[in-house]
Amino acid sequence: MSATYTIGLDYGTNSVRALIVNTANGREVGTAVWEYEHGTQGVILSRDPNLARQHPADYLKGAEITIRRALSEAKRNLRGFKPDQVVGIGVDTTGSTPLPVDAEGQPLAFQKKFAKNLAAMAWLWKDHTSVAEAEQITALAREIRPHYLAKCGGTYSSEWFFSKILHCLRTAPEVFEAAYTWVELADYVPAALTGTEHPDRLTVGICAAGHKAMYNEAWGGYPDAEFLGRLDPALAELRHRLRSKAYTIDRAVGTLTQAWAKRTGLRAGIPVAVGAFDAHLGAVGSGIKPGTLVKIIGTSTCDMMVAPLDQPLADIPGLCGIVPGSILPGYYGLEAGQSAVGDIFNWFVNYLQPGGSKLGSHEALTRDAARLKPGESGLLALDWNNGNRTILVDQRLTGLLLGQTLYTTPAEIYRALIEATAYGALAIINRFEEYGVKVEQIINCGGIAEKNPLVMQIYADVTGRPMKISRSAQTCALGAAMAGAVVAGVHKDYASAQKAMTGLKPRVFRPNPAAHEVYQKLYPLYRTLHDAFGTREWSGNLYHVMKTLLEIRNRARGVTG
Amino acid sequence: MSATYTIGLDYGTNSVRALIVNTANGREVGTAVWEYEHGTQGVILSRDPNLARQHPADYLKGAEITIRRALSEAKRNLRGFKPDQVVGIGVDTTGSTPLPVDAEGQPLAFQKKFAKNLAAMAWLWKDHTSVAEAEQITALAREIRPHYLAKCGGTYSSEWFFSKILHCLRTAPEVFEAAYTWVELADYVPAALTGTEHPDRLTVGICAAGHKAMYNEAWGGYPDAEFLGRLDPALAELRHRLRSKAYTIDRAVGTLTQAWAKRTGLRAGIPVAVGAFDAHLGAVGSGIKPGTLVKIIGTSTCDMMVAPLDQPLADIPGLCGIVPGSILPGYYGLEAGQSAVGDIFNWFVNYLQPGGSKLGSHEALTRDAARLKPGESGLLALDWNNGNRTILVDQRLTGLLLGQTLYTTPAEIYRALIEATAYGALAIINRFEEYGVKVEQIINCGGIAEKNPLVMQIYADVTGRPMKISRSAQTCALGAAMAGAVVAGVHKDYASAQKAMTGLKPRVFRPNPAAHEVYQKLYPLYRTLHDAFGTREWSGNLYHVMKTLLEIRNRARGVTG
Repeated sequence: MSATYTIGLDYGTNSVRALIVNTANGREVGTAVWEYEHGTQGVILSRDPNLARQHPADYLKGAEITIRRALSEAKRNLRGFKPDQVVGIGVDTTGSTPLPVDAEGQPLAFQKKFAKNLAAMAWLWKDHTSVAEAEQITALAREIRPHYLAKCGGTYSSEWFFSKILHCLRTAPEVFEAAYTWVELADYVPAALTGTEHPDRLTVGICAAGHKAMYNEAWGGYPDAEFLGRLDPALAELRHRLRSKAYTIDRAVGTLTQAWAKRTGLRAGIPVAVGAFDAHLGAVGSGIKPGTLVKIIGTSTCDMMVAPLDQPLADIPGLCGIVPGSILPGYYGLEAGQSAVGDIFNWFVNYLQPGGSKLGSHEALTRDAARLKPGESGLLALDWNNGNRTILVDQRLTGLLLGQTLYTTPAEIYRALIEATAYGALAIINRFEEYGVKVEQIINCGGIAEKNPLVMQIYADVTGRPMKISRSAQTCALGAAMAGAVVAGVHKDYASAQKAMTGLKPRVFRPNPAAHEVYQKLYPLYRTLHDAFGTREWSGNLYHVMKTLLEIRNRARGVTG
Repeated sequence: MSATYTIGLDYGTNSVRALIVNTANGREVGTAVWEYEHGTQGVILSRDPNLARQHPADYLKGAEITIRRALSEAKRNLRGFKPDQVVGIGVDTTGSTPLPVDAEGQPLAFQKKFAKNLAAMAWLWKDHTSVAEAEQITALAREIRPHYLAKCGGTYSSEWFFSKILHCLRTAPEVFEAAYTWVELADYVPAALTGTEHPDRLTVGICAAGHKAMYNEAWGGYPDAEFLGRLDPALAELRHRLRSKAYTIDRAVGTLTQAWAKRTGLRAGIPVAVGAFDAHLGAVGSGIKPGTLVKIIGTSTCDMMVAPLDQPLADIPGLCGIVPGSILPGYYGLEAGQSAVGDIFNWFVNYLQPGGSKLGSHEALTRDAARLKPGESGLLALDWNNGNRTILVDQRLTGLLLGQTLYTTPAEIYRALIEATAYGALAIINRFEEYGVKVEQIINCGGIAEKNPLVMQIYADVTGRPMKISRSAQTCALGAAMAGAVVAGVHKDYASAQKAMTGLKPRVFRPNPAAHEVYQKLYPLYRTLHDAFGTREWSGNLYHVMKTLLEIRNRARGVTG
């Protein structure tokens, strides 16, 4: 029997990637990336700095080009490889990235009339035009549907589905009127590949619906008509044109059409899985299972766990999302995250530009920071330059740096910022465990996990836990390819797919006991500042913070004073 | 009647300056600076980074050279000027800078035997070798003589007279043994010029004795023999060889000797005033009087006021010193200060080197910071990179910066650091007034006051008070020259000398009401952090700090969010 392969299609913010994976062992045999051709690096901007849109044409053209190229690469890499050996497709995308479609499910942006109308494009996840609408939705839910908020971190975001649609209704009514319904990008691409775009045939994934549109089977799907009607009667009407049920990623939305087979070189009729968000399929591609925390660490982090649906689970306060089936079928998907990690390091390097340009690169700062002992700088930082997503769920928080003297160096600050993100990571781990979700192992992936051993070592030293790294550098696309393998029936379920297709890198970052001992003294100080500035309830004394830091510093330096 | 002049001799850390001043109008007609020739920039260093000494020969050679050169300059500048028109001399120096002398009052360093012995040199004010001894003195005073500490900020410093002598006793007993007694630099120079070095003839100034050696007439002069004996019996013996009375700067220690007249070109027999510290004579040269706060702003600040001796005055907690007669005869000298001001800006520019070398100079940062509106950065800092001298009197405090986002710029931080020092300045003003010492006007001098209008404007805006600048750029030397004029009898007292010889620059920095209004909202936030991290007593909530800053920021930027 010849090997079988599946394709993961991974739609990022600036580009789309196709990855061809061997379903028996996870070997990645071909890949291609294509940068979206509309806008600036794939994002359509305007004078409003909050606006971020994408042209849906890029999604389709991107699928065609990357699949073709990835197949070519696989043929070059692997003697005898045939596109017919590709037996399934999975799709992951950014989100919430909804787009308005017509009665046939075709993007309004494809109509000549709307070809240049920004409201008719896809509203990219990081579009922040809908702040007022998000506040209104949050306020209304707090008043009459508090349980809606309990599953999404207590605040409905301006980045999410209904905020964007409501904003469109108010600011571009001609687009809202012309739209029959709205579709998440994660649902649109699988539908397009399988010819199931028609709103009556469309398959909606639980991941986007559950995390961004307050969908929950327990309360009958999307928010009820009364709730939506209170926001705007037109939203209540729209609800009738949304699908009533959302599905997990073990389901196929349909099979590849003849037309798409021709465009891509793949075999017609292979199944395409229900789409999901990149981070969630990244967790799948990293081997998420009960007890395993997957951290995707890049500019920000997504920290994910799963918990069996058949066991009781509390509403864990401060998590961004708790959605049945959103990551793995049969499990609650639990999503936490840090609003900024790499972004904080980038801020320091790119905005402050320390070290007189010579010593201020990430490489130089990392090298110098690695030479420092825990505690010896006397510095302590809060990782809140972009607010705190978990566990405080508060965007209106800012950064803090404490302990500077007249001799504090850029490398010391850089290390303090890394440590601050590690403390933030530990606060999330502790929150999971406080509510009975035991963290037995931690698997990291994403740019920073891949590229910065110092960050990983500090995370191990701060948390006192080994930091493992996912084997694949493309866990999102790999997870999507695994979805293709499951819906193709190559693997009977995700446990089987994970066993065969995922793995870890050989290098594990293990905690250094001496360093961990120091960090066990520093973390309570971080937590003191965290609670002091981040919670209304805190009422304690901070007098000891600077003193204790100096004591820890002096011990680390072996001096008195 | 031809004009009369006096000379101020100003002994700084790296150099000595002579300034010739017209006693009728304060015109500065000649000046010269000479850099000490021993050590590194005048400071003798060793492998111990805490050690800082000076060679006493530099003091004498410096007097000769600078007086000669200043006289030459005056002759060039002023047709018909004659050295005989110089009728008096005053001296200001760094301190506490004690030096061991023999039974004739000659520095031990002048003996061949001790010529290279660092302990036989002058122990420069910033010598920090005596930390352990300072702690011992503080602990003992706290136990048995708490009133000693009440007048010097609650802590006896490692920089001060008895700490250094005790350290010499312990680490260089051969020097301690050989020394008949110890003399402050401020007393040594006037004694040398007048031939009154002999320990039985030496005149001691109240300024150094009162601020650095716990001298107070109220308790019989220097600390009592029992107290000193508990530190070491040899110190109790030394007390017998210290002078029993200290004098204010309206007294002459003697008249210029023939030998010094020959060396300098001055007339023999002109009076030399009791010496004092540079900052205190700087306050005199800036026109200090009741109700006037003089701020000398450089790397750190010295903030000085005077209060009538014949009116009751509380022990103002947190002040560094409260000494009768130490600044002006007939008044309490009140000394406060900030441990770092210019040093914090220098740290940011020289250690962090922000802005990729192009935008990171003081000039560029000042230019960009000046364009910012109060509050618009959302930042708040504590000015504690070098501890807090007043009002917390705690070296074991460190810096803090709060409010960073992912877009915070170096200029925003630079401005926040300036503002932090302004809040620190306001805390000192408020402390004076809380204890009944009304601040009616503020006169600034020193490098930063002279050179940085942005700092002065921010100080005005933060405090809501006009910032005036002393007319002379050499207020310390001017104050010394005024002492010369008073002891010469040209002016009957300091009020008369000040009226004639001091003045203000025309430019006054007046508070901008709109800016002050914003700072009135920001200062309470600073004070919240100040009390939270700086006092044991504080127990409040900090939750509002970041939120309020964001609100103030948004108002300043005219945005919501």
